[in-house]
Amino acid sequence: MRIPFNKPYISAKDEQYVLEALRSARHSGNNAFGQKAISFMKDKYGFQEVFLTPSCTAAMEMGALLSDIKPGDEVILPSYTFSSTVNAVIIFGAIPVFCEIDPKSLNIDVSKIEELITPKTRMILPIDYAGISCEIDEIMLIAKKHNLIVMQDSAQSYGGFYKNKPNGSIPHLTAFSFHETKNMNAGGEGGGLVVNIPEWHQRGFFMQEKGTDRRLVLDGVKSKYSWVDKGSSYLLSDILAASLLAQFENEDDILEKRKKVTDAYYGLFQLHHDAGNLSIYQPQKHISSNHHAFWVVFDNSSNRSVFMEKLREYDIHVYIGYLPLHSSPMGIKYGYKAEDLILTEDIASRVVRLPFYAGMADEGLDYTIEKMTLVLNKIYG
Amino acid sequence: MRIPFNKPYISAKDEQYVLEALRSARHSGNNAFGQKAISFMKDKYGFQEVFLTPSCTAAMEMGALLSDIKPGDEVILPSYTFSSTVNAVIIFGAIPVFCEIDPKSLNIDVSKIEELITPKTRMILPIDYAGISCEIDEIMLIAKKHNLIVMQDSAQSYGGFYKNKPNGSIPHLTAFSFHETKNMNAGGEGGGLVVNIPEWHQRGFFMQEKGTDRRLVLDGVKSKYSWVDKGSSYLLSDILAASLLAQFENEDDILEKRKKVTDAYYGLFQLHHDAGNLSIYQPQKHISSNHHAFWVVFDNSSNRSVFMEKLREYDIHVYIGYLPLHSSPMGIKYGYKAEDLILTEDIASRVVRLPFYAGMADEGLDYTIEKMTLVLNKIYG
Repeated sequence: MRIPFNKPYISAKDEQYVLEALRSARHSGNNAFGQKAISFMKDKYGFQEVFLTPSCTAAMEMGALLSDIKPGDEVILPSYTFSSTVNAVIIFGAIPVFCEIDPKSLNIDVSKIEELITPKTRMILPIDYAGISCEIDEIMLIAKKHNLIVMQDSAQSYGGFYKNKPNGSIPHLTAFSFHETKNMNAGGEGGGLVVNIPEWHQRGFFMQEKGTDRRLVLDGVKSKYSWVDKGSSYLLSDILAASLLAQFENEDDILEKRKKVTDAYYGLFQLHHDAGNLSIYQPQKHISSNHHAFWVVFDNSSNRSVFMEKLREYDIHVYIGYLPLHSSPMGIKYGYKAEDLILTEDIASRVVRLPFYAGMADEGLDYTIEKMTLVLNKIYG
Repeated sequence: MRIPFNKPYISAKDEQYVLEALRSARHSGNNAFGQKAISFMKDKYGFQEVFLTPSCTAAMEMGALLSDIKPGDEVILPSYTFSSTVNAVIIFGAIPVFCEIDPKSLNIDVSKIEELITPKTRMILPIDYAGISCEIDEIMLIAKKHNLIVMQDSAQSYGGFYKNKPNGSIPHLTAFSFHETKNMNAGGEGGGLVVNIPEWHQRGFFMQEKGTDRRLVLDGVKSKYSWVDKGSSYLLSDILAASLLAQFENEDDILEKRKKVTDAYYGLFQLHHDAGNLSIYQPQKHISSNHHAFWVVFDNSSNRSVFMEKLREYDIHVYIGYLPLHSSPMGIKYGYKAEDLILTEDIASRVVRLPFYAGMADEGLDYTIEKMTLVLNKIYG
């Protein structure tokens, strides 16, 4: 039995909405389904304003433009993240300042942020690894003290909560991913930007629409639109928004199934965590996961290798996670050395991400747990 | 009878391919349909390398990154274009240098380019207005002499030819649009970047994949990918690529129908052009149109207004075209005044774009011609 690392959830509703969008022949961005998907997010999670974008990367670029990130500005972010987090600001000339992670969550270590702040710092850009929110309240306090913008890269955490507030509702800017690999996806590629600064909303519409005030024409305020700002085409095809809406409407089913996967993995791995063989995320009362992913940090990298190899023999596909950015070829160009962030390097050499998708709850979960049990018993006796 | 300005061509094949892509559950970018659409373009038009992107804007941004456009670099482009042309380079800090247009084509006036070149000039960025190629051979000669990069904004001209060479095959970089409003569209939103410099191809794959060398992993050259360059997520969902492939396979039908619209408009407007009432594009032997659009420059702006108002009474939707960039709010921020480009200002005040879509050939074309004949007779007696 093959257990892929990921398998997107697709329902009959996806097909129905996608065809409806295509047949409408009004399927460019911000049309009927896009508007419905945005309303859905606003109604359910109370976001002030949401822009659907072609990707989470594009959402973060739009956030960087809204923040007026300029060459030489410093942005503090974890090294343990996907390259999009850093690229979204360096393409505009920002300098990345990499921060250590907290080994308990693999998210940015909030206690190490303040020492990295200089007069050039403009933004803190944390991520929500594996769908677990970073300590956003503490980050907002630091940002307030130093007058910084916070953009939360919530690529993995749509649908989760921090202190009963939905992810995306707290910082100045939040970017979500609706890529094929995420809990809910927009026809394979898509993203969203939440903007929680009301004064930035209008500019957001201009930037999304190629730097024009077309929005004012649609609103009947102007008769012709013109070039008024920087911008790009940060629009999501209505066909992709249609699929996203279908997934939003199936959110309960998706989360219920994914929770079963989480529970099964805890059932197996918590014992090994308690025995000190490996470590897994220990749920915190103030954070609700969206059941996006499950990671394991082994006690050493050779046990990780054995685990991965043995599972591959059973056709179960696990994944090593990120290579740290600071010690990658580009990180080195920015002057970093591997030993600058020892903890990140160490953890990255021992972490594994497990297969995780809603469909596992229906088929494959028992097989996966059975085989993982065998392998762990082999490793830890 | 309502005649919209545009109406996308959609066939049963679009539905079939879109559903196939969705059901594959491998519908992120560069999957099966994306690869087929790219092969189609390469086989038919001989492009060296093509990247499918979420929009033409994104394609141009990717081209700007590949060209290493940096703050302070000057880019020469016509003022008579869409804001995306200029935004794709100014978001990276480039300074726009606006050039006059040739009133015969409304494309960049090649004879005025060289006087705008300074030691800071890095790129010439012409467009192909209404699907008619700019004088790309002459532009390439100027670029070669001054060691400049040429990126052709062929948003409107996919499928056309210049001296028997397909648009996109001549300059260093070409961006195509597959937006809802274009001859062929990728599910509402999409674009493509042709890269004609072989040494840039690999870097293109890295930049398209968030600045990672994931391509080398897919090719089996490496086992793990890492952060190696600047980049973004310049990928087109495979669902959108599926629709694009369907349209590509219907290209002959689309072009045949659009040619009927072109022919009908010439049948009406050439007489008025010859009489000096207005002017339209006069076909050139060395350029083949893709029948994207039809524009009319009236003898004065009040006749343009009458034409537009009367047609609106018949529910026929015409469009004023671009507001010049140099005299827009952003152009003024860059130090331009309306009178800096007198010809562009003048033409923009007199031009009209006519309704144009493949479906008109089946329904609406006769009605449109009949009503336009009435209105022109009223204006010019």
